[in-house]
Amino acid sequence: MTSSVSTTPLFDKVAFIGMGLIGSSMARRMIRDGLAGSISCAVRSEATRDRVLELGIANYAYCDIASAVEDADLVMLCVPVGVNETVGQQLEGHLKPGCIVSDVGSVKQAVIRDIAPHLGEGVHFVPGHPLAGTEHSGPDAGFPELFEGRWCILTPIPGVPDAANAKVQALWEACGMRVECMDADHHDRVLGITSHLPHLIAYTIVGTATDLEEAMRQEVIKFSATGFRDFTRIAASDPTMWRDVFLNNREAVLEVLGRFQEDLMALQRAIRWGEGDKLFDLFSRTREIRRGIVDAGQYFTNFSAEGEDR
Amino acid sequence: MTSSVSTTPLFDKVAFIGMGLIGSSMARRMIRDGLAGSISCAVRSEATRDRVLELGIANYAYCDIASAVEDADLVMLCVPVGVNETVGQQLEGHLKPGCIVSDVGSVKQAVIRDIAPHLGEGVHFVPGHPLAGTEHSGPDAGFPELFEGRWCILTPIPGVPDAANAKVQALWEACGMRVECMDADHHDRVLGITSHLPHLIAYTIVGTATDLEEAMRQEVIKFSATGFRDFTRIAASDPTMWRDVFLNNREAVLEVLGRFQEDLMALQRAIRWGEGDKLFDLFSRTREIRRGIVDAGQYFTNFSAEGEDR
Ligand SMILES: NC(=O)c1ccc[n+]([C@@H]2O[C@H](COP(=O)([O-])OP(=O)(O)OC[C@H]3O[C@@H](n4cnc5c(N)ncnc54)[C@H](OP(=O)(O)O)[C@@H]3O)[C@@H](O)[C@H]2O)c1
Ligand SMILES: NC(=O)c1ccc[n+]([C@@H]2O[C@H](COP(=O)([O-])OP(=O)(O)OC[C@H]3O[C@@H](n4cnc5c(N)ncnc54)[C@H](OP(=O)(O)O)[C@@H]3O)[C@@H](O)[C@H]2O)c1
Repeated sequence: MTSSVSTTPLFDKVAFIGMGLIGSSMARRMIRDGLAGSISCAVRSEATRDRVLELGIANYAYCDIASAVEDADLVMLCVPVGVNETVGQQLEGHLKPGCIVSDVGSVKQAVIRDIAPHLGEGVHFVPGHPLAGTEHSGPDAGFPELFEGRWCILTPIPGVPDAANAKVQALWEACGMRVECMDADHHDRVLGITSHLPHLIAYTIVGTATDLEEAMRQEVIKFSATGFRDFTRIAASDPTMWRDVFLNNREAVLEVLGRFQEDLMALQRAIRWGEGDKLFDLFSRTREIRRGIVDAGQYFTNFSAEGEDR
Repeated sequence: MTSSVSTTPLFDKVAFIGMGLIGSSMARRMIRDGLAGSISCAVRSEATRDRVLELGIANYAYCDIASAVEDADLVMLCVPVGVNETVGQQLEGHLKPGCIVSDVGSVKQAVIRDIAPHLGEGVHFVPGHPLAGTEHSGPDAGFPELFEGRWCILTPIPGVPDAANAKVQALWEACGMRVECMDADHHDRVLGITSHLPHLIAYTIVGTATDLEEAMRQEVIKFSATGFRDFTRIAASDPTMWRDVFLNNREAVLEVLGRFQEDLMALQRAIRWGEGDKLFDLFSRTREIRRGIVDAGQYFTNFSAEGEDR
């Protein structure tokens, strides 16, 4: 599971836009394994800029994007997907020809819509999404092994040279990931089910519990049983990131949410009318998917007990 | 966290009705720590009866209840809550005066309704629910540390002597649990939120995924991200146990499910109309509950990576 350390960097100058959980994990990995000649970054706040330098996870840190991306060979966007439009505007005219721009956003069609129009001739955009994360955020939350053994999905854009896509793929592989390519539209529908809907539901159920009368809420906390405790972990994820995910993957989320609601109504009805057979049938069928997941070997050890696919 | 080993057994003759995950975990603990003089059990199938003897987790194993409970000081019901009515009938007239009957069922009002009427004069019923479990079942799934550091809820019945309640409490404490008492009605509402609703939702979402077209389903399995993977584990729980839970805690489950549906509709609406502030507000509020749980120290190490409160 440990990747060999590169001797020649994959990219000479790398610029991160955003240095939270994902950006700082990548930077740590690139430093550890010598994947970048130098690393600069742009973050929003001075506090994060100072912290990044203190942690030694970038050679240069700025609050403005133009300075960070000057002469960069790779610009890696690691910000909430809702700010991509603004970030795209700030990149405009500051990238050198041949520069590769990539990202880690949890939705892909919206990112392509917001970023691609701002990149000039000869700049290559390679959208990506590493399925790895935790519920923590900020530059202190990152660690170099976050990506180890997980999947990274790339959604290559027609017309972008293969060489650019291949370089980004090589970078993620060097970070320990297995890489798969698919259409952005397909990505958004698959993740809508595997990640966005579960998060939405976890937020809802924990929200429902939050609204209970005080005494009841205290007991819910005290006796937080499975799966409630699992749900609270998921529902502790970053509010900004997830607001942006739902607003930017609206169609796919609403579509799968509609199916989920129908299925839930059917179960509700079965409970109300005491239809045990219907419950038993569904509860037996769902075991199959679990078996599929266990067989598909999703169970490699992660370095962080809390590390997970997102 | 390790409990001291008793020198005198808490009960002389203990009879288990049902020897699955929970019953066999208790039996293993009682044997390990000398908590019982002897252990007999009744299970439904000959296969389980033979397996129990092979595993050495009971001195005597039967398929009929009357033989197992003869002369027992403690009868511990560890069967799915839907069979309690039948089990109650089979206990009738076979328990000696002074015998304590207890149980581990995940709902409490229904168990009291189904068992109490069948117990004669001088037999004391102490309903209980250890909040510990895994998604596995059967006698091979049990282990003596399952209960360590978890909560056990007792729902004492008015009129039952304190001494009987205290003995059952002492037993669970000897199994490593912290014990709390409450009304059966209150138990069913709290667990409706912390355990039954999350299970229902996990079953639903995994069911929704099961119904996807084949290609999509394969991808969902392959890229099963958080929380989907968590949900599949929950949805791999025993179908019989959970069917019985929903049928026997109908009112509490339907009540909290109604609230959940309303909250989900509100979120759906916020996504559809792009109301980011509403999403952000909820996603921020839910973090509080997580903090409450972490503060309440629900994070003691468990012996099994898969062990959880139920
Ligand atoms: N967390 C996960 O589990 C996960 C998994 C896979 C993919 N992703 C994706 O990865 C991306 C980043 O997530 P994260 O978890 O790393 O977030 P994070 O820890 O919250 O970090 C976000 C970073 O973006 C910066 N930022 C925010 N707004 C900005 C702006 N307008 N201009 C410049 N910088 C700005 C922040 O700077 P300040 O610190 O100064 O605010 C911070 O450095 C998101 O698109 C998310 O969808 C996340
Ligand atoms: N699993 C959890 O996470 C958990 C947690 C807390 C409480 N509980 C509660 O604990 C109880 C037992 O659950 P479990 O997980 O231990 O179940 P389990 O592993 O499926 O075991 C059930 C046992 O009951 C026996 N049984 C079933 N029907 C019977 C009948 N009509 N007469 C006699 N024996 C019968 C089974 O015998 P055969 O093997 O011969 O079928 C088996 O030994 C349930 O009430 C559940 O609500 C479960």
